[in-house]
Amino acid sequence: MQNVKVIIWGLGAMGSGMAKMLLKKKGVEIVGAIDIGAKLGKSMYELVGVERGNRADVIVGTPEEVIKERCADVCLCVTDSFTRNAFDKFKFVLEKKINVISSAEQMAFPQAQEPELAKQIDELAKANGVSILGTGINPGLIMDLLVVVMTGCCESIDHVVSRRVNSLSPFGPTVMEEQGIGLGVDEFKKRVEDGTMAGHVGFHESINMIAEAIGWNVDKVTQSMDPIVTDVDRKAPYGFAKAGDVAGVAMKGYGYIDGEVKIEMDHPQQIEPEQVGVNTGDYVIIKGTPDINMVNSPEVPGGIGTIAMVVNMIPQIINAKAGLQTMISLPVPRAIMGDMRDRIDPECKIVK
Amino acid sequence: MQNVKVIIWGLGAMGSGMAKMLLKKKGVEIVGAIDIGAKLGKSMYELVGVERGNRADVIVGTPEEVIKERCADVCLCVTDSFTRNAFDKFKFVLEKKINVISSAEQMAFPQAQEPELAKQIDELAKANGVSILGTGINPGLIMDLLVVVMTGCCESIDHVVSRRVNSLSPFGPTVMEEQGIGLGVDEFKKRVEDGTMAGHVGFHESINMIAEAIGWNVDKVTQSMDPIVTDVDRKAPYGFAKAGDVAGVAMKGYGYIDGEVKIEMDHPQQIEPEQVGVNTGDYVIIKGTPDINMVNSPEVPGGIGTIAMVVNMIPQIINAKAGLQTMISLPVPRAIMGDMRDRIDPECKIVK
Repeated sequence: MQNVKVIIWGLGAMGSGMAKMLLKKKGVEIVGAIDIGAKLGKSMYELVGVERGNRADVIVGTPEEVIKERCADVCLCVTDSFTRNAFDKFKFVLEKKINVISSAEQMAFPQAQEPELAKQIDELAKANGVSILGTGINPGLIMDLLVVVMTGCCESIDHVVSRRVNSLSPFGPTVMEEQGIGLGVDEFKKRVEDGTMAGHVGFHESINMIAEAIGWNVDKVTQSMDPIVTDVDRKAPYGFAKAGDVAGVAMKGYGYIDGEVKIEMDHPQQIEPEQVGVNTGDYVIIKGTPDINMVNSPEVPGGIGTIAMVVNMIPQIINAKAGLQTMISLPVPRAIMGDMRDRIDPECKIVK
Repeated sequence: MQNVKVIIWGLGAMGSGMAKMLLKKKGVEIVGAIDIGAKLGKSMYELVGVERGNRADVIVGTPEEVIKERCADVCLCVTDSFTRNAFDKFKFVLEKKINVISSAEQMAFPQAQEPELAKQIDELAKANGVSILGTGINPGLIMDLLVVVMTGCCESIDHVVSRRVNSLSPFGPTVMEEQGIGLGVDEFKKRVEDGTMAGHVGFHESINMIAEAIGWNVDKVTQSMDPIVTDVDRKAPYGFAKAGDVAGVAMKGYGYIDGEVKIEMDHPQQIEPEQVGVNTGDYVIIKGTPDINMVNSPEVPGGIGTIAMVVNMIPQIINAKAGLQTMISLPVPRAIMGDMRDRIDPECKIVK
């Protein structure tokens, strides 16, 4: 069998990380890379900082230059957070009869906030005999799929809390700015009001994925965003919050089922949590038969986790039935320590 | 769509529990029950202690009486721990073109210790256009599938420890006897030597499932069984161990990959662990990129967990491709809070 052939669309921090991870794996090769601006025409190997060795070079190009019909088994689209913004890219790839994995948060369960686009994407994929999946660490695993898996050993479920307490300290200046690190509380509130505080994208998707998986109908989803005000000065590599100012964002999400909150999301993100005795971790707390009280501590780091989830789902999306897939419609994610080709159903391989 | 139709083969504690759970669910009904001896000819409702209400009665019968070709969508085989002992039952059901879920521990991954039978089972299922799965709480979820899921967010894996520390106190006299509760240490050792100490069945299966999932080749699996000697008298509802005697069994399993132990199973089971400050729980400890350090505490109870896993996988095995399936080849387990029919692919329904 030929190597699994991958195109990466978007060589930011996540796309570059996926390239580096793929270059360490057996039975898979990167056959194309797409980006814009100054990266065009450059060698992907130079951009991601990996020795090319005796591999053929991969020159960053436009979609039209890189994507030819059935030239790859999968394209990793690592460009957007919102389905709407990425839709034309998906369309372009699917119509070239190539499978897609997207890291867009909304694509983890586009049925939640973009049902009409989800339907179009499903139809496009089916019409072209390929499949498309959105995944990442969260949404994609921690606050949704992991909850679903643990409901699997329950006879019944009354209530779910999914909590991710994580540190923003490893992130760069963009994230510090997006999350309002160092702002005064009034300024933070103003930005929440005018909608310029990004926060976490994914509560609608995670809540709807869990509900769909276990058979609950969601009436509505609400969410809130509050400042985490620090009592002490906190200094991270790329962010600083003085005592009294904002050291992070506490987001909560509520999924209503039959008029009651039955699914809660709790996701406080801050710099230097350990300076104030906050233990980071990923929590699954289920009230049901039986109760589940699970924690992974410290939390799975967001960057590595997203890179790994997208790469590790490549075999599953190649083997999948045509159409829009989700993490609850496919076999479980898993690390790839052997030859990636060992996992591919020969009938599903695009580049034979 | 007609209700999902289920036959239960074996009305012991587990089979009866599955019946009770199914009777609370929507869109599913029990159409047959099989057992032997004094249970034959009795009403299943009486045996499991549930009001029949206006449901048609289900009279416990022989396999020949109960199982007619395509008379149900799935048969839950809840009779054995070992593939070899259950094989003829699977054959009987599969040849009637009905899907099977087995709670036999070895069936969680029969490729591990019964590769020849696994092949035959796969061929039988394919020849009859149906599918078969082994599952339960452990093997099936805690010490294997949960590990696999968490490797999904890892770029690479160096070493895995799967630990389940559980209490035997909820179990009855049979388990007390099987696990040697109350024996003197010498007597325990004699029983280990002559092979009459049952212990946990499933390390070979869990280790091979994890390895197969992530792409490691297992050279060999070894395991050990040691007494948990108590320093204090411990009294459980059905078992007693005086100070100096055996209060439980500590089993360990080792999976060798490239000559090194890379997968460890650690499964101490004892009565009244809380009397000596032992916290029960399910642990997934992965050394890799990143590390995972997860615990569910207290542990998922074995009985409820197995009942729920078998019932909750019914839609997945009905929808599956023909052949032998495993927990790593199917979409993730999940609780069933809605109508079970909502999850069934109409093309895969047997009783239309």
